[in-house]
Amino acid sequence: MVKVAVLGHGTVGSGVVELLLKNKKSIESRAGQEIEVKYILDLRDFPDSPYQDKFIKDFNIILQDPEISIVAEVMGGLSPAFDYVRSLLESGKSVVTSNKELVAAKGAQLLKTANQHNVNFFFEASVGGGIPIIRPMHQCLAANEISEVAGILNGTTNFILTKMIEEQMPFDQALQLAQQLGYAERDPSADVEGHDACRKICILASLAFGKHVYPHTVHTEGISRLSLDDVAYADSFDGVIKLIGRARRLPGGKIVAAVYPAILSKHSQLANINDVFNGILIRGDATGDVVFYGRGAGKLPTASAVVADIIDITKANCTSKSLSWEDSSGDNVEDYKLSPSRFYLKLQGDPAEARKQIARCFGDAEYLARPGQPADELAFVTEEMTEHELDRRLEELQGVQLKSMIRVLDY
Amino acid sequence: MVKVAVLGHGTVGSGVVELLLKNKKSIESRAGQEIEVKYILDLRDFPDSPYQDKFIKDFNIILQDPEISIVAEVMGGLSPAFDYVRSLLESGKSVVTSNKELVAAKGAQLLKTANQHNVNFFFEASVGGGIPIIRPMHQCLAANEISEVAGILNGTTNFILTKMIEEQMPFDQALQLAQQLGYAERDPSADVEGHDACRKICILASLAFGKHVYPHTVHTEGISRLSLDDVAYADSFDGVIKLIGRARRLPGGKIVAAVYPAILSKHSQLANINDVFNGILIRGDATGDVVFYGRGAGKLPTASAVVADIIDITKANCTSKSLSWEDSSGDNVEDYKLSPSRFYLKLQGDPAEARKQIARCFGDAEYLARPGQPADELAFVTEEMTEHELDRRLEELQGVQLKSMIRVLDY
Repeated sequence: MVKVAVLGHGTVGSGVVELLLKNKKSIESRAGQEIEVKYILDLRDFPDSPYQDKFIKDFNIILQDPEISIVAEVMGGLSPAFDYVRSLLESGKSVVTSNKELVAAKGAQLLKTANQHNVNFFFEASVGGGIPIIRPMHQCLAANEISEVAGILNGTTNFILTKMIEEQMPFDQALQLAQQLGYAERDPSADVEGHDACRKICILASLAFGKHVYPHTVHTEGISRLSLDDVAYADSFDGVIKLIGRARRLPGGKIVAAVYPAILSKHSQLANINDVFNGILIRGDATGDVVFYGRGAGKLPTASAVVADIIDITKANCTSKSLSWEDSSGDNVEDYKLSPSRFYLKLQGDPAEARKQIARCFGDAEYLARPGQPADELAFVTEEMTEHELDRRLEELQGVQLKSMIRVLDY
Repeated sequence: MVKVAVLGHGTVGSGVVELLLKNKKSIESRAGQEIEVKYILDLRDFPDSPYQDKFIKDFNIILQDPEISIVAEVMGGLSPAFDYVRSLLESGKSVVTSNKELVAAKGAQLLKTANQHNVNFFFEASVGGGIPIIRPMHQCLAANEISEVAGILNGTTNFILTKMIEEQMPFDQALQLAQQLGYAERDPSADVEGHDACRKICILASLAFGKHVYPHTVHTEGISRLSLDDVAYADSFDGVIKLIGRARRLPGGKIVAAVYPAILSKHSQLANINDVFNGILIRGDATGDVVFYGRGAGKLPTASAVVADIIDITKANCTSKSLSWEDSSGDNVEDYKLSPSRFYLKLQGDPAEARKQIARCFGDAEYLARPGQPADELAFVTEEMTEHELDRRLEELQGVQLKSMIRVLDY
């Protein structure tokens, strides 16, 4: 029998305990032995919980109990999660986590610690909730050179965008609805400003390209400045706006990575991922594009990924040395503006003069139209260029005002 | 160093050798040691191949070489593949295969043999080509009770259907085009009649539900009888026709499984999987629906799955006891007609009389219309019922002729 401890009894933590009980029989048969939750660590009291005998408030009980071989860290945040996880690994206990902030900030260090102490640090639940992505990427695509990882990595913003696209609901109202439904937090900035998606693309990029990608090195934009006008123009271009996290390897081995809203063709596999669902695309030299789709968050989907990691450690009984990456000083990430794409631009100004300016600076632009378009508003899509080139040309534009810029990506 | 042999130098086999060379460095780092192809078994001569020194024609050289620990069987077919694989496993060599016919017909037996001899029998490449599906389903979804598996499992038929849907190309012409492009064989029946998809759903269902599902127990229909009229009616219903393989667990533990064309809503994640791409949906009690999408066939995608299995065995160095299922006598599969769905029906007959008959037998039918619809043709979608119930009602219809019946599924 394997005895585990669960750090945190919030949404995911209670799901982990529930799932280990609910599917006990099949989990046992898959793991090859019984898995029992011995401790649940939480500072709060849960007087109505059926697991009364398991709650503790002192982390050291877990750290010092030799019976505990696997610990699920599902508290979130860096402190005290980082100190807890590090000391658990150092004392020879494997850790599984759903904590993307922890993995994005400290992954390389914790993986190294796990390797040194012959235990495992697994984090399937940190990206894509219930979607298997870390392990498939690591194992099944092991034969590939991965050139690019991209995806819709945040369910809250995807829900908001879906409402904006399908129901022409303004951003503020869609955000309110997401909050009412429990999809968005009271302070929604981590989701809405792209930071959550940034952490996830950092984890995927670190694993795909072998060196830690730190969130502060990744250019991140959210969706709070998108308007229904942008959505309408995108629609007229046969496209939809999605918040995309992406990382691409450049020929020399460095990478470019970014999180920003992007216009995708409606025929893209990522364009049809709606509501709170996530979708992740892995581009390999042998497989081509592979897409994984499912619920990127939520109690049981995320818990199922945590439990799968626990089962895996129970079965394997050895350290997975290759699920790892090197640390980096941040110089593995190149300026994202080197990445070429087409750009959607919305300008305001005298229409005849603006068209002249656009022709001068951008050549053959592809003009877009929307219902109710004011005479002094122009929207168009440029040809492909780097963002540095875009900046240069935008500087040359005279007498018009830039109202929106959105990248056009072809996944 | 691990030395491997490759049985067969066809499309997939040559891809395996190519990939092991092409990505040698990264494969080595992921596998933890060098992987060398020592033998390639093929009865044909390949005078222009750069691997001259590796070709052999005598299988026993591989069987008796103690240096060979892993063999890739990529010949296809049951004979001699089955005898080869069995004797390799019995002599303590692990086998990886892309051979869906072999796994669908002999999986339970070969997995048992592998377990008895403490070696592995892996088959990631047998379903979904380059899409990681066997391992994610086995490992990452281990915490779930899987209730249903369904998907677009055959790229050739999906290519043909895409041409019928998007370009109104008749079936025969689309098939010819598929043959010209090398997507369909000269004898296309294994693809077009659904047998290939049937083998794949058998493998997925065996793994998902724990007992071998034999192809002859699975009701299988192909796409050769579909017409552009059916495609047009489906379109008017906001749907598309896809060839779906599906297996669902019934409350008592038995399963229903079938392969047939089905109408899916255009908003379904499976509806937007086009051309030669495959998509597989796994429905778990904790994850909800998870969909895997990618190239279901082709030299390098399939080879990449074979090589991933080789890497996995190299790394793990132990037997995966849980990647397995019990044998069955076939009584684990229930009559597929117990499965309820809605049905699209196309009838021919006197329109007034037909409408009266339809109202009498089917109550509130949802009528469909298509451009150029003849006066004596009626198409409608029934409410949900079992296929037994459908049969009963169809028998009661008088004076009209049934021209098409297609299930309407809601994935």
